Amino acid sequence: MKNNIKLDDVAKEAGVSKTTASRVLNHRGYLSKETIAKVQQAMIKLNYRPNTIARQLYKQQTKLVGLIFPTINNPFFGQLANELEQLLYQQGYKVLVGNSGNDPAKEESYLHQLLERQVDGLIVGAHNQGLPEYHHPNLPIVAIDQKMNDDIPVVSSDNYQGGVLATQRLLDDGCKCIIHTNGPLNFISPTQNRRLAYQDVLAKNKLTPITYRTDFCWSNEKKKETFRQIFRDHPEVDGIFAANDTDACLIISVAAEFHKQVPTDLKVVGYDGAAMTTVLAPQLTTIQQPISQLATVATQILRAKIEKNENSKSVTLPVKIHNGTTA
Amino acid sequence: MKNNIKLDDVAKEAGVSKTTASRVLNHRGYLSKETIAKVQQAMIKLNYRPNTIARQLYKQQTKLVGLIFPTINNPFFGQLANELEQLLYQQGYKVLVGNSGNDPAKEESYLHQLLERQVDGLIVGAHNQGLPEYHHPNLPIVAIDQKMNDDIPVVSSDNYQGGVLATQRLLDDGCKCIIHTNGPLNFISPTQNRRLAYQDVLAKNKLTPITYRTDFCWSNEKKKETFRQIFRDHPEVDGIFAANDTDACLIISVAAEFHKQVPTDLKVVGYDGAAMTTVLAPQLTTIQQPISQLATVATQILRAKIEKNENSKSVTLPVKIHNGTTA
Repeated sequence: MKNNIKLDDVAKEAGVSKTTASRVLNHRGYLSKETIAKVQQAMIKLNYRPNTIARQLYKQQTKLVGLIFPTINNPFFGQLANELEQLLYQQGYKVLVGNSGNDPAKEESYLHQLLERQVDGLIVGAHNQGLPEYHHPNLPIVAIDQKMNDDIPVVSSDNYQGGVLATQRLLDDGCKCIIHTNGPLNFISPTQNRRLAYQDVLAKNKLTPITYRTDFCWSNEKKKETFRQIFRDHPEVDGIFAANDTDACLIISVAAEFHKQVPTDLKVVGYDGAAMTTVLAPQLTTIQQPISQLATVATQILRAKIEKNENSKSVTLPVKIHNGTTA
Repeated sequence: MKNNIKLDDVAKEAGVSKTTASRVLNHRGYLSKETIAKVQQAMIKLNYRPNTIARQLYKQQTKLVGLIFPTINNPFFGQLANELEQLLYQQGYKVLVGNSGNDPAKEESYLHQLLERQVDGLIVGAHNQGLPEYHHPNLPIVAIDQKMNDDIPVVSSDNYQGGVLATQRLLDDGCKCIIHTNGPLNFISPTQNRRLAYQDVLAKNKLTPITYRTDFCWSNEKKKETFRQIFRDHPEVDGIFAANDTDACLIISVAAEFHKQVPTDLKVVGYDGAAMTTVLAPQLTTIQQPISQLATVATQILRAKIEKNENSKSVTLPVKIHNGTTA
């Protein structure tokens, strides 16, 4: 039910003029702390709802941007969400964060929010694909490391270069049996280029590529069971190029169960190199994505789409190797 | 500017009845994918803005909850934000995430959003205090590990118990010079109970407490410089109880610069024990907070406040020690 409290009533209750009450509401001009407190107190007492939402309705914008990631409880997506939020906030936007996990229904619900104009734009790094909503042209969406459709620009780092750097490092370390872990093959994503690079580099060196399938959203226990299978199937393994840093650390834990010392018996290279990972696991050698730049470029492209309906091309940024002691 | 496109226009453009267009908009009843696509396409083509926001205005709720944390790019707050988002989503809410860092202005901006009813409630774990907005009674706010004012319930884990467990572990390990790191003393928070417990346990054992001040929002380099000072001032240090796990890992890195081996020469106990930390740094002995339970309880209390205007008491949950190899 709508109440009919007006700003006049708030001003009267607070014992100030309507102009003063309006200035408090709109954070304009110099006001004493006491005045601000009195007006806010009156707003709460009378249960006054300012017409912010009505104003948004008129302006046709919500100043909200949705971020859809598999989970922000991961060093890469956590840092990315953090940096995107900071950049967007500086530009007058607040962010809605959705962890879509393996749940296409949840991702769909965020897409509907966009279609219903409850958010002005979306930045999507989620792993669910094939939702029909992505196929509307000209939606203000930017994808991170995911191919949605031809109209949605993708911001990613150079996954092929990363795959080459990781595989070459393991070869330079003298590894003869190098195994790779990666997401499902039917998943159309630039991250598949890591696998492609791994295969190309091994082929050039007359070695056979072996890739184990993992999934970002599996439980740690399920991932560890997959990694145990690597050591059971290939006791000769001496190098692993992991899909991401959490997988790399889980592989190192599992290797210890098989009495494989890292880096003596087994070399491991991870992927992502988020700031938090280099603090918690500084020993890990990993391919470092330029997370801050990914956030900056994604924000620029999204704003061009929201404000000027501008179409942008996809952008690929370079990666580098972070030298730890595991390879 | 407001356009005047109505649902009738959308229905006509899509070649369906108004009832069908309305069912697409409200996700009701069985509809073929083709029909849904046609209607959505028409909505976009005509730039139709459904009256979702107007409906929210009428219902006086936004179904949005704001989370204000120092930074989600931290294993504790990352996991907490992730779990809160999942719980709230199941209950029909979406979450706005703000990383307030050291910035009271940003925290204030989120509080204004609450006062202006752009969000239905807030869950605050931020470190800025003394904002006058917190002093309105009966606001739908829940604090995590922070004391805001007497009206705002605090959900925290048992920081005193955690301090006892950590300090006792270092004593049991035979440490004679045990140093603690913690936030500034003027910061009124239940986390100060960790320091209190540390001091009490040392006093009982006739040892002198030494606490070094750190700050959650400092750069890693600034933190490391503080930790180097510990080893310069107290070369005899053989045990450190760190304020959190990232600090514990930075301390272990710095110890290596001073040729102190962990755990041979130095024992270290961290704090938080988030799931991601136990993957990336499984060797770290740490006090494990019940993050999932903190999220569950905070969500319950917030919903009681939002829906029934119910006042709740603060809640303290037990912690346990995670046994790594660093202490």
